[in-house]
Parts: sequence; structure tokens; C-alpha cells
Amino acid sequence: MFIRGVGRTKFGVLREQIPQLMYEAILNAKKDAKISVEDIDACIVSNFFGGTIDNQSHLNSLIASLLPGFDKQSIRVESACASGGAAFNLATKLLNNYENVLVVGVEKMTNRDVSTVTDALASAADLRLEQDNGLTYPAAYALIASEYFDKYGVTHEALDRISLKNHENANKNPLAHFYHKKVTLNEIKESPVVCSPLRLFDCSPISDGAAAVILSATKSSERDVEILSSEMAVDTLSITQREDIIKMKATEKASKMAFNKASIKPNDISLAEIHDCFTINELVSLESIGFCKFGKASDLNTSITGEFPVNTDGGLKADGHPIGATGVAQITELVTQLRGEAGDRQVKKRAYGLAHNIGGSGGSAVVTILKGNIYV
Amino acid sequence: MFIRGVGRTKFGVLREQIPQLMYEAILNAKKDAKISVEDIDACIVSNFFGGTIDNQSHLNSLIASLLPGFDKQSIRVESACASGGAAFNLATKLLNNYENVLVVGVEKMTNRDVSTVTDALASAADLRLEQDNGLTYPAAYALIASEYFDKYGVTHEALDRISLKNHENANKNPLAHFYHKKVTLNEIKESPVVCSPLRLFDCSPISDGAAAVILSATKSSERDVEILSSEMAVDTLSITQREDIIKMKATEKASKMAFNKASIKPNDISLAEIHDCFTINELVSLESIGFCKFGKASDLNTSITGEFPVNTDGGLKADGHPIGATGVAQITELVTQLRGEAGDRQVKKRAYGLAHNIGGSGGSAVVTILKGNIYV
Repeated sequence: MFIRGVGRTKFGVLREQIPQLMYEAILNAKKDAKISVEDIDACIVSNFFGGTIDNQSHLNSLIASLLPGFDKQSIRVESACASGGAAFNLATKLLNNYENVLVVGVEKMTNRDVSTVTDALASAADLRLEQDNGLTYPAAYALIASEYFDKYGVTHEALDRISLKNHENANKNPLAHFYHKKVTLNEIKESPVVCSPLRLFDCSPISDGAAAVILSATKSSERDVEILSSEMAVDTLSITQREDIIKMKATEKASKMAFNKASIKPNDISLAEIHDCFTINELVSLESIGFCKFGKASDLNTSITGEFPVNTDGGLKADGHPIGATGVAQITELVTQLRGEAGDRQVKKRAYGLAHNIGGSGGSAVVTILKGNIYV
Repeated sequence: MFIRGVGRTKFGVLREQIPQLMYEAILNAKKDAKISVEDIDACIVSNFFGGTIDNQSHLNSLIASLLPGFDKQSIRVESACASGGAAFNLATKLLNNYENVLVVGVEKMTNRDVSTVTDALASAADLRLEQDNGLTYPAAYALIASEYFDKYGVTHEALDRISLKNHENANKNPLAHFYHKKVTLNEIKESPVVCSPLRLFDCSPISDGAAAVILSATKSSERDVEILSSEMAVDTLSITQREDIIKMKATEKASKMAFNKASIKPNDISLAEIHDCFTINELVSLESIGFCKFGKASDLNTSITGEFPVNTDGGLKADGHPIGATGVAQITELVTQLRGEAGDRQVKKRAYGLAHNIGGSGGSAVVTILKGNIYV
């Protein structure tokens, strides 16, 4: 299994609507893959809440309007914030049936006010156990952060450093939501509290954007990047039903399966894209994947020039988090890095890359491992 | 590929909410399949607008809450009114990877007023080209009916007979939305106009319900029903972009592929479940699938005791149309008939069954062909 081409749009507050965003990302991926419409055998669209925010569902049919001549199997997949990862994961399974599969993830989040969008985001949580009790996502991750701080004696300083690193990475990514925004540690520390202990700079932004990836069963060019594994697992929808809210069971399970299938270990990974919807989740997820012991993730050197670069594109925090596009954009970043085409933000080691994408507070998780072209 | 078990809930205006509906359908399918949770390798949830109507997305994660012990790949699929068919179709593709796949379709439609639901249903149509111009679904299918009447000289009488037949079939299906409702031809003819030429009895109702199917790669019992093919195709999202609005291109393409793969012809089919969201669509679809020449579908004898029974469960018209469940329920009816377990509504010939499920005004279509256990 290989990735033949990738493409995306700028992330941010954009004028373009869903069809334009999808079209731009697909066009970029098609150019990169050097593939014609006739050679695409199936399509998977990832989108979270186009039906709620824009009253536009059925985006899998829209593909036939965007790509004249395409009339084959096309479906839309949703798994909350893991929609993009789930779509990519599903595409890898379909490579048993097809030669080339197009995955496109899209989200238009800025057409409505923040309160409407926060409500719609909460639809990824359990209606009766969470939403009806006011547990929006900043609140859920605030509970996770509090528990983490209590258990391991880690302080908010660790989250500030993640936020700063991801913003610095985004400053090297022209397509990032916060490419032009220079951020200081002081600004982060003094940012308003959203839900204690989480502050504004602990939260990913509300972004528009799209990303596309074209997968192939066989290799067609030296630029193709091999997919070693992509695995998905689920956990209870509500965090109230879990024994331990800072060990992500779906992430643990998907990671174990992905490493087994790829026949490599966590310390073989050169760089990772980790689901930092809130800064605390970068720490918790690094630990649940197995990159370090529980409580120790803040000791890792995860800058681009560090031992183990994480979220080189700026992550959800600073690249942006257009829900349906996020998991697909993680793959575009890994491919760009593994090909050695990441310019200012290029990492040095590029043996293996890992992408980690979760839905809700961890109710679904996808872990994908890609192999680099060159071991440096 | 085989269907090992099926199950569903009553369709109608129900007190149960999404989780209860899903649970009941899954439990019934699990009992029918005699399978334990540990043996289910993956799950696909079909749902159209839980996010919009109930602010409940991420139903694939909910599976882990409903079925303690299940933590494997689980995704939600949406393709408007073809969501159920698309989920089933996808499950057949995943049987290259897994032994047993659970498909569950669900929709809760009666929690909100009819106008809100009509708006939400319109999200399956193109936002700019259709919705912004007021083209709701009754209006789109009224255009299709007008064009059909004009072209072939067929009158509304043909639609009345479809409505009557489907209501009579539903009277033999205890789980149907209109099981207890006795309908006369006069009542149908005199029912209020919804969008000319379509009257109330041309429109499928707003129903709650769920249906589940368990597919297996290999045969495990004599009651298993073989899946010969399941194919999906798409067409432009908007009917304004189509050359001919009464020939359904996605249906034509999916049908051709499905018949090719099954190595049988339309006149080999003993019974069919056809997507009659509006009565006119039963005619148009029968023709696009290839069961007769264009303009001639109303000449077919499609009653349960007729030459070619169609919609033996009452169809979307009278069994009900809980969007995400519909395409899955079509499969449960075919399996029940092909096993010879349909009681009062049992058809005589049961060589091959066909299910046809479309999204929107035909922007997506799924056609599935099953093989009966006994050729009579």
C-alpha cells in the first residue's frame, strides 16, 4: 500500500465554501499523484458536521459534480474529530478491492458563531451523559488535564511549552492557520482561562480547510510513500464510562495493532503527528501510544530539531483543526516530511512517521504508520 | 459472502431514542446470527442526521458503550437516504479483511417538528443549486413525476396503485409503520396535494427505527443467505446538472455492475426491494434497473402474489423510511423472504432478491443481489 499523492488548502478563516475547499485539495493531490479521474476507483469523503452547520450532507455525491466523469463508489465517513483518520484507514482496507482510492477531508467551521459551533462540536460527546450535563470539549479536556496534573505532579508549564512549540512550527508552514502569528511564552501564560486549568492557547482554533490523499495498492513512482499499517479502535462514547480518563484505551489498542502490523517499535518512529486538539492531549496521547512512560511525555524533546519531532506542521493547535480535514492533513504532512520536501520545517531523521487522530474525548482512534524513502 | 443474521425494530413514531433503537436491532441480529460480541470484527453504523436533529454524532463510538467488550474498527457512514445501502455495500468490501462485520442503521426523526425535519432532509440536496431555490424533496420528485407523465402518457392512477399495494403489504408486516392502517384507493386518490402532482399518499412517512445485519466471509449455517454482489455508484448531487431526470444514472450503473458480478439478468430476480421514497421513484427505478422498458413499469404485476413482487414489507411508503435504517431493513426483508420465513407476506419464487437504495434525487445508488436458498 502506497500514498501516491497529497494536497491541501490553507487552513484558517477562509472565504471558500465546502465544494471549493474540496475541489482545491483534490486538484492538488491529483497533480501531485499525476493521476487522471478515470484511474480513481473509489472515493471516501471525510466530514464532521456539514449537515449541521451548512445543511449540506451527501458530500460523497458532490464528488460526481466536482470531478466530471467520476461515477464510482463514493461514501462519506464520520468519526467526530477522527473522521479524517477513519477515512484514510478505511481507504487502506479498500485497497484489497481497488487500485487507487481518493480520500478527501473537509470542514467549513466559520460560517456560524462560536457558540453554535461549540454546540455542534459537542455532538461528538454522549447526549445524555455528557452534553445534557454541560460537558463541552474544553470542559472534558480540563478534567483530563486536572487529573493528569494531580496524578503526575506535572504543571501547566508543560502545556505552555507544547503550545509554543506548535506555534513556532506553524510559523514555518505557509498553509497553517497561524502561519503569520508570532506568539511568546508570556502571551501563552497570560492568555484567558477557557475552562480551568485550560487557557486559550491550550485550545485548537476553529478553522476552515480541506486535505486530500490518493492511495494506491501498488507503487508507481519513487516519490510514493509506503503505508505499513493503519488501525482503528473504539472506546465508550462517554468519558464517564471509563476506568481511567488519562489512559486512552482506543489509542492504546490502535497503536499496538499498528506497531504489530508494521513490525516496528515506538522508538523506531522518526516523527509523529499527534492529535493535540488541546495541549494536554499531546502529552496523554504520546504516553498512550507508548513513546514514553505515563507521566513522562513532557520530558521528550519534540521540537523540529529535537530527538523526536511532533506536530511539525503546527499540529491542531496552530496548523488548525478543520475537523474532517485534520486526520487527512496529518498524512499530507508526514508524506511531505518523509519525502524530504518540507523546506524550512524539514526534519532530519525520516525512517518512519506516525499519525494519531482521535474522535471526541478518545471514543475513537486511528493510528497510521508510514515508511520513509530514506533512512538518515 | 453471506448474511448470517438480521434484526430490526418496529418502524414508526416511537418512544425509543437512538441508543435504544440501535441496541434492539443489534440484539435481534445477534440472536438470529448466533454470534458473540468477540466474534464481531468490525462495525459500520449508518445514520443520516443524528448530528442535526439530536446533536448526536460519533455513533460508531457509541457501539463500544452498547456492546461492552467491542473495541475494534467502527465507523459511521452517510450517503443521504442511501446510507444503509452504502453501509451494507462497504461491509461487503470489508469482508476481504474480516470474517464478521456488523452493520446497523438507525434514524430518530420524530423528535422535531415536520418543518425542521423537511429542512434537514433537504441537506441531501445541493445547497446552492437546489436548497437555496426552495427545491425540497417533494418538489424534486414532483418534477420527476411531471416529466414522467409528460413523456410516457402515464397518469397518477399508476402511482395510486403503487401506494395501495405498498400499504396492503405493510398490513402483513407487524413491524411496519402503517401495519394497522387500512387504506382505500379512494382515500389515496383524495389525499391532499403535497407538491403537484404528488399527494400525501405518494410520500413516504417520517419514521423512527433501526435495522441490523451481520455479514460473514464464510458460510456457517444453512440459514445463511449468499451475497452475490453489492455495487455503488454516484451521480451529480443536483438534478439540475443531469441530462435526463427520469433516467437514474447512478442506479443504472450500480445495477449493471451488480448484475455482471452476480452473472444473472434482471428477469432472474424473484423479488425486489425498491427505493420508493415517493411512489414515482418505484416506477422510475424499476426501469433504470432494467426490469422493463422505460415508461412501462406500471404494467408489471408487483403484488406479493404477482409475477414480480416489489416491496413486500410495504416499502419506504408504508413500512416507513427511517433514513439510516432503510437500506439495512431492505436487506432484512430480502433475507426473511429468501429464507422462506416471511409468514403472511411470503413470496412464492425465491431464487434471487434485489435491493435498491438511493440517496437524494439519485446522487448515490446501491444495488445488492442475494441468492435464495431454494429455487421454486
